[in-house]
Amino acid sequence: MEKMSEPTPAMSPEEFRKYAHEVVDWMADYLADVRRYPVLSKAEPGALTDRLPHEGPESGESMDTILNDFFREVVPGLTHWNHPRFFGYFSVSASGPGILGEMITSVLNINGMLWRTSPAVTELEQVTLDWIRQWIGLPEGTFGIIHDTASIGVLHAILAAREKACPEVRKDGTHPPMTLYASEHAHSSIAKSALGAGIGQENIRLVRSDAEFRMDADELERLIEQDRTAGRLPFFVAATLGTTSATSVDPLPRIIEIAKKHGMWLHVDGAYAGVAAMLDEYRHHFAGIDQADSVIVNPHKWLFTPIDLSILYLKDKELMKKSVAIETPAYLKAAEHPRALNYSEYGLALGRRFRSLKLWFVLRYFGRQGIANIIRNHIQWVQEVAKQIDAHPDFEVVAPTPFSLVCFRYKGTDQDNQRLIAEVNETGHAFLSGTMLGGRFVIRMTVGNVAATRDDVQSTWQLIQKCAERMKAAV
Amino acid sequence: MEKMSEPTPAMSPEEFRKYAHEVVDWMADYLADVRRYPVLSKAEPGALTDRLPHEGPESGESMDTILNDFFREVVPGLTHWNHPRFFGYFSVSASGPGILGEMITSVLNINGMLWRTSPAVTELEQVTLDWIRQWIGLPEGTFGIIHDTASIGVLHAILAAREKACPEVRKDGTHPPMTLYASEHAHSSIAKSALGAGIGQENIRLVRSDAEFRMDADELERLIEQDRTAGRLPFFVAATLGTTSATSVDPLPRIIEIAKKHGMWLHVDGAYAGVAAMLDEYRHHFAGIDQADSVIVNPHKWLFTPIDLSILYLKDKELMKKSVAIETPAYLKAAEHPRALNYSEYGLALGRRFRSLKLWFVLRYFGRQGIANIIRNHIQWVQEVAKQIDAHPDFEVVAPTPFSLVCFRYKGTDQDNQRLIAEVNETGHAFLSGTMLGGRFVIRMTVGNVAATRDDVQSTWQLIQKCAERMKAAV
Repeated sequence: MEKMSEPTPAMSPEEFRKYAHEVVDWMADYLADVRRYPVLSKAEPGALTDRLPHEGPESGESMDTILNDFFREVVPGLTHWNHPRFFGYFSVSASGPGILGEMITSVLNINGMLWRTSPAVTELEQVTLDWIRQWIGLPEGTFGIIHDTASIGVLHAILAAREKACPEVRKDGTHPPMTLYASEHAHSSIAKSALGAGIGQENIRLVRSDAEFRMDADELERLIEQDRTAGRLPFFVAATLGTTSATSVDPLPRIIEIAKKHGMWLHVDGAYAGVAAMLDEYRHHFAGIDQADSVIVNPHKWLFTPIDLSILYLKDKELMKKSVAIETPAYLKAAEHPRALNYSEYGLALGRRFRSLKLWFVLRYFGRQGIANIIRNHIQWVQEVAKQIDAHPDFEVVAPTPFSLVCFRYKGTDQDNQRLIAEVNETGHAFLSGTMLGGRFVIRMTVGNVAATRDDVQSTWQLIQKCAERMKAAV
Repeated sequence: MEKMSEPTPAMSPEEFRKYAHEVVDWMADYLADVRRYPVLSKAEPGALTDRLPHEGPESGESMDTILNDFFREVVPGLTHWNHPRFFGYFSVSASGPGILGEMITSVLNINGMLWRTSPAVTELEQVTLDWIRQWIGLPEGTFGIIHDTASIGVLHAILAAREKACPEVRKDGTHPPMTLYASEHAHSSIAKSALGAGIGQENIRLVRSDAEFRMDADELERLIEQDRTAGRLPFFVAATLGTTSATSVDPLPRIIEIAKKHGMWLHVDGAYAGVAAMLDEYRHHFAGIDQADSVIVNPHKWLFTPIDLSILYLKDKELMKKSVAIETPAYLKAAEHPRALNYSEYGLALGRRFRSLKLWFVLRYFGRQGIANIIRNHIQWVQEVAKQIDAHPDFEVVAPTPFSLVCFRYKGTDQDNQRLIAEVNETGHAFLSGTMLGGRFVIRMTVGNVAATRDDVQSTWQLIQKCAERMKAAV
């Protein structure tokens, strides 16, 4: 036998134990003190890059050194998404039980590609996704599968829809012009994924919206008919319930009618707001969701589950499987059993993290009522502040607030509003983002963090007014 | 203001601290005792499903109850991928520093979609990927990006290649028949992703391999010429350095020549073996890798980094961006700065976990030499046992062992070999998987776990012999 090189031992379990306890204390302190951090990092582009070595280390370093560098060099460059006053984009949260789930997932390091590669990983995904299915009102028999992001989830919905409308594309890659429809306020990932699937930019229709930023269904129907007349194949329409810019709700019942009439795939994007279907008083926004061919809900958005975990629900599981079907390679052949689901057969990715564990922890720790209470509070706090904003002479709310996002403007120029956001963010107290609605720049404030309080919302509204007054005085 | 519902408080930082310390002790115990677990779960299909409630809980439950249920109900249904004697598929590992990184990532819960959404997340990804780039011999200026899996990574490589060969496809979705080539032993995700990108099954060429399971380059060239003559557009060839079944190494220098001659995109799949390019004595397998248009290396395979983290390297960053380019939505518009990279513009997914932190911890904790030593040991232990297997009268090694996988057969029927695997796996001591090579069923044994020892390999070889003797005696 050849001479072995010196082994560098793996970190021993006892060394791991020591550092993991230290890290846990830092994590608990972080959760306790997170409001002390400025939400948005003030780092300059390239600052961290310039402070780190341009070449990797030749020899190993101690975990003390590494952790110290993390605290000293990396933390100042972080924007704190788990801060309760992160009100930009969509506010998300890693709740305690979700983090505990991630910790266990990381030490197990399981790849649940096939049922046999870890039976419990597959079955826990099936069970937890079925709980949520019931809670949001999807029919029994609906198939659920976890993807990392809604972007990759909607890619899969498009692939299944493409398979249904034109199975030839999978055989020889040819297809007639296939057209896809979504609101101009739909998430950008729908268009991106359509490009990926080979649909082509010219065949993506971003349907104009009405005064409340909901898809104009008459316009949708007009576009579909125009495309049919021109010999194109309308195959996919996405209705967004809770759009990214304004959380507007597309008119699902009308869109269902149109999709049915034209034999099209109906996708519902509930990535952010879908969980609100659990609450009786908000369920009316989701009427018809049970008729969708596919639905996306992201527990990593408004269900207190650490990033990443996005659920794709599908009415027709077999169509999904067929749309990505290749001959099973020999190294993956597994005995077939009607109750042994091989999740990797239903998507492009072979590898699958044990993502459902954190979701199971979250669902059980809070329970349906607990989750509903938190979501209800978020919506009520936002609707409360929306009234206050609209009542203020210098501000106006510019869109309905069906969920936990308020879009508003300082009554001034777009530049004033951009400056106002920048000044609020500069304080470090809260983070707001902006968007364009109806041709005007508006401020977005969205509440979704599990640890957020009414006071977080109110203190930020106070701050916004203060910044606006200062801005006014400076003119 | 409307009446608020009773808030269910988030888990308090102190409650989190208590349970997180408990969980860390379980994790450290797991790492210390993992060899006591049967590697492959003995659960029956549906067993866990039947033991869990079919409806989610109405009210919240205590973390004690939830963790107890995890230990009692879920753990027996797990196959232990982090077990040092998990020798099936590809052996992977979550090393201590990698797990510490995952823990911190989960509490921060950052989405690094844009530079500004967390500057350090973007820059740490750039820095760590550049370290590995240097270590495996890719040219300066190569662009690296993390995807969850190699499957999604190669989808992106195909999209960039499609954009280069036929930019029209992104405009109107039409294209001539575009053909793609990979060895018959290439990973299944290449064909799957090609289907996803709309290439069509009939345009995917799985090139036959030689007696050592390497792509037959003459056959590749013949197929390309045949396709060109027939008016098809050969656009993409994947060379695998370390195939899934046999870790065979496709003849890269010849494939480069052919790809260049025909103006095709050259992709190198080094998902498993790519890290071995860090070792001088194995670098010859990777000669030419610097000329590839895209390269995949998975730190979550053989670089001790918890699942998931796959790197896609690209020569032409701008082509990748163009291939998924849509108009930037208003809610994502960010100030431009030459040093502020917005990673989400280079892929389909908008959301991006802080995956580079665990990689940074791993690279620094082990250092280049430490990593090289562990990989070198794995290869030497496998090459040692391969000699022993081949010297045994009842066994034969059926493929070269360039890396840490040995493919071998018990000299009997395919059924005998399947039975032998089943008997070894049944003991719980180790996990082996199988594949087909040259029309025969063969046993795969691969070493890749950071905590594996020579004794793990040798004791399993003893066990294999014992099981084979028992089988022989029973005839």
